[in-house]
Amino acid sequence: MEPVKASIITIGDELLIGQVVDTNSAWMAQELNKIGVTVSRRVAVGDEWTAIWQALNEELAVSHVVLITGGLGPTADDITKPLLCEYFGGKLVVDEKVLAHVHYLFEEVYRRPMIDRNAKQAEVPDVATVLHNAYGTAPGLLFEKNNKLVIAMPGVPFEMKGIMTDEVIPLLQKRSKLPVILHRTLITAGIGESFLAERISEFETALPSYIKLAYLPHYGMVRLRLSATGFDTESMTHEIEARFEELQRLLPDVMVTNRDEPIEQVIGRLLLERGQSISTAESCTGGYIAHLITRHPGSSKYYKGSIVSYDNQVKEDLLGVTPGTLAEKGAVSEETVRQMALGALSSLKTDFALAVSGIMGPDGGSDEKPVGTVWMAVANKDEVITQKLRLRTERSRNIELTATNGLNLLRKFILERVPEPKN
Amino acid sequence: MEPVKASIITIGDELLIGQVVDTNSAWMAQELNKIGVTVSRRVAVGDEWTAIWQALNEELAVSHVVLITGGLGPTADDITKPLLCEYFGGKLVVDEKVLAHVHYLFEEVYRRPMIDRNAKQAEVPDVATVLHNAYGTAPGLLFEKNNKLVIAMPGVPFEMKGIMTDEVIPLLQKRSKLPVILHRTLITAGIGESFLAERISEFETALPSYIKLAYLPHYGMVRLRLSATGFDTESMTHEIEARFEELQRLLPDVMVTNRDEPIEQVIGRLLLERGQSISTAESCTGGYIAHLITRHPGSSKYYKGSIVSYDNQVKEDLLGVTPGTLAEKGAVSEETVRQMALGALSSLKTDFALAVSGIMGPDGGSDEKPVGTVWMAVANKDEVITQKLRLRTERSRNIELTATNGLNLLRKFILERVPEPKN
Repeated sequence: MEPVKASIITIGDELLIGQVVDTNSAWMAQELNKIGVTVSRRVAVGDEWTAIWQALNEELAVSHVVLITGGLGPTADDITKPLLCEYFGGKLVVDEKVLAHVHYLFEEVYRRPMIDRNAKQAEVPDVATVLHNAYGTAPGLLFEKNNKLVIAMPGVPFEMKGIMTDEVIPLLQKRSKLPVILHRTLITAGIGESFLAERISEFETALPSYIKLAYLPHYGMVRLRLSATGFDTESMTHEIEARFEELQRLLPDVMVTNRDEPIEQVIGRLLLERGQSISTAESCTGGYIAHLITRHPGSSKYYKGSIVSYDNQVKEDLLGVTPGTLAEKGAVSEETVRQMALGALSSLKTDFALAVSGIMGPDGGSDEKPVGTVWMAVANKDEVITQKLRLRTERSRNIELTATNGLNLLRKFILERVPEPKN
Repeated sequence: MEPVKASIITIGDELLIGQVVDTNSAWMAQELNKIGVTVSRRVAVGDEWTAIWQALNEELAVSHVVLITGGLGPTADDITKPLLCEYFGGKLVVDEKVLAHVHYLFEEVYRRPMIDRNAKQAEVPDVATVLHNAYGTAPGLLFEKNNKLVIAMPGVPFEMKGIMTDEVIPLLQKRSKLPVILHRTLITAGIGESFLAERISEFETALPSYIKLAYLPHYGMVRLRLSATGFDTESMTHEIEARFEELQRLLPDVMVTNRDEPIEQVIGRLLLERGQSISTAESCTGGYIAHLITRHPGSSKYYKGSIVSYDNQVKEDLLGVTPGTLAEKGAVSEETVRQMALGALSSLKTDFALAVSGIMGPDGGSDEKPVGTVWMAVANKDEVITQKLRLRTERSRNIELTATNGLNLLRKFILERVPEPKN
């Protein structure tokens, strides 16, 4: 049976001049993949009639379902709705349900006066089925032609997500016999992509044709993903699980987790199991490690907080780093991060603390301590360990890599220490 | 004269299952736009021979330059190099310069043993021109056919950026008479897209055809961008500046900045001019505001640090929030953020402090304080102001919106206070 193929078209000049990063289509692809719809292409085009028209033609030629985001807003550069109306040979009519919803949003949720432009959101092509947008004024629109579907949604991420979850996914599941796609992902740290490939080359060669292995490197870690596609869920599950077990046995020393989750969630689970807590003292990462941890719901159960000591005075006042250490060794030194970690441990009263200090660039380097020099420390009440990194010159990359490496140092430290029984 | 059109093809199964967000093509589009190359389409395809081949055909039909990223790595799922070799009718040969560079990287930079797989990176199609990759082992490859260019680069962001900056951009500038594209951007806060459009509809209608206006809403702010395209730089500059002045005059009350920069940089410039400093006390944003500020080089000149008080004990111990306030009013209350801001001001010794506390969701809400309830405070030594937000339920959106709104409250507070003369 042929898989159901989808294309994603994102519309907006801002995508072509690079003023915004397209996060919508990654999310949409994930959701489609989960239900067994294969995304074959993603295309971004500008707010331009012929470009959108041509993209529609091309994607309808290769896919069964074409999902469109963007260009449904209330301003003059939003041309998706009239274009689709003409493409499918309809005319715009007011949808009373949508109009009532727009009124409701302005009166009850936004609590702002409504203007004519907003009411226009309720005009929809008479050849489209309306998909309810619980979170905004522009409804989703569903068109059908030659047994293929075109679905248009607004580009505002949470509105698109609402329509996808509430309307599009159930609709696609109802209409098609979808293949099963199973993924198993593990994450490694501390080994390069090519060394990994060398270590598991025999494993890779022996995989059956319906299971694929992908390498996804990202800031000092590599995700290894096995994907199986087919219709026999039971035998596929059996096979992918067996292969995944084998893969894990090949990489015990470098595997961080056997789930598809970021490293801070690995730490979070570990701490929840043990009933322990952590805190951070961040200089060069400036709160980024705290952000990574706290973006996950429930992190308050194990994370107490951070002292972002961007200024040396804060390192002294709140973390107890001694003025002598700062003067003699400097802010980026083993002794400073050691004192920072111990300072966080006692100020924030946690079982473990992670501290980092480094030179992220592009300025601030010296011959002795070039840009990319980082010191990290992890402490508990018995012990402090430290590690030095030598990164390169790109600031945002250095912040990411320091966070990843620091969290990995913390993870290993926690794992190696057996928790004391709690009363 | 016809504009030089470019297409961007990004290759990788990970893009189609949504496992990574494509930030490369936004960056590439920005750089191309700056030199007057118009990006007409962006396409993402999987690691699949026919899909890549077809995308190449399609993009070469509509664009003069096709830029490709991804699939040049050392593992089996990387098929871009052999495919391009066949597409352009060449064969793979070892490039001695590239081989020497790979050796250099392993011996001097990575300090790791090299394996055969790494050496294979030095094999290049004999019909391609090699573009030096200073930051990695896979070189860029340039192909030419019927006066059109195909340029392939690795997908690792900092490697791609190096090749673009060092090789591709100068090459494109040398080869073509490129049109000038001028952008002028301002950012507004506190007004919806449709209300903005209403306020400036006459302005928009009166724009000459070669100047376009775009609305780019993003987390409570809207960027308004004017773009002029043409060859007469002088008259274009004159016209776009005049229109931009007019636009600013229409929006004095809601304009945050007349540059294309995030709000934390607006604050940074303001503080640098005045020689003043800030700190933050973050509960619900968990370090995200600190991260936004410190991702910019030079922020240590005005930013001292943050106390991320995720736990109430930290609010008491380090920010001096009274146990009585927490017990009676709760962590998310006007009185708590007021005390947090004053605590940060005195602990971190800055001219201004921003504090936020809220319920980001999905859990933790109550009837009295539903998910999305946020209190913010800004203080200096004379005064504290507070503001309440009522956001919705999506955690990551709530974190973004709290950061943006908090920074905007801080910006307005600083602006309204004349700095005292420093000694």
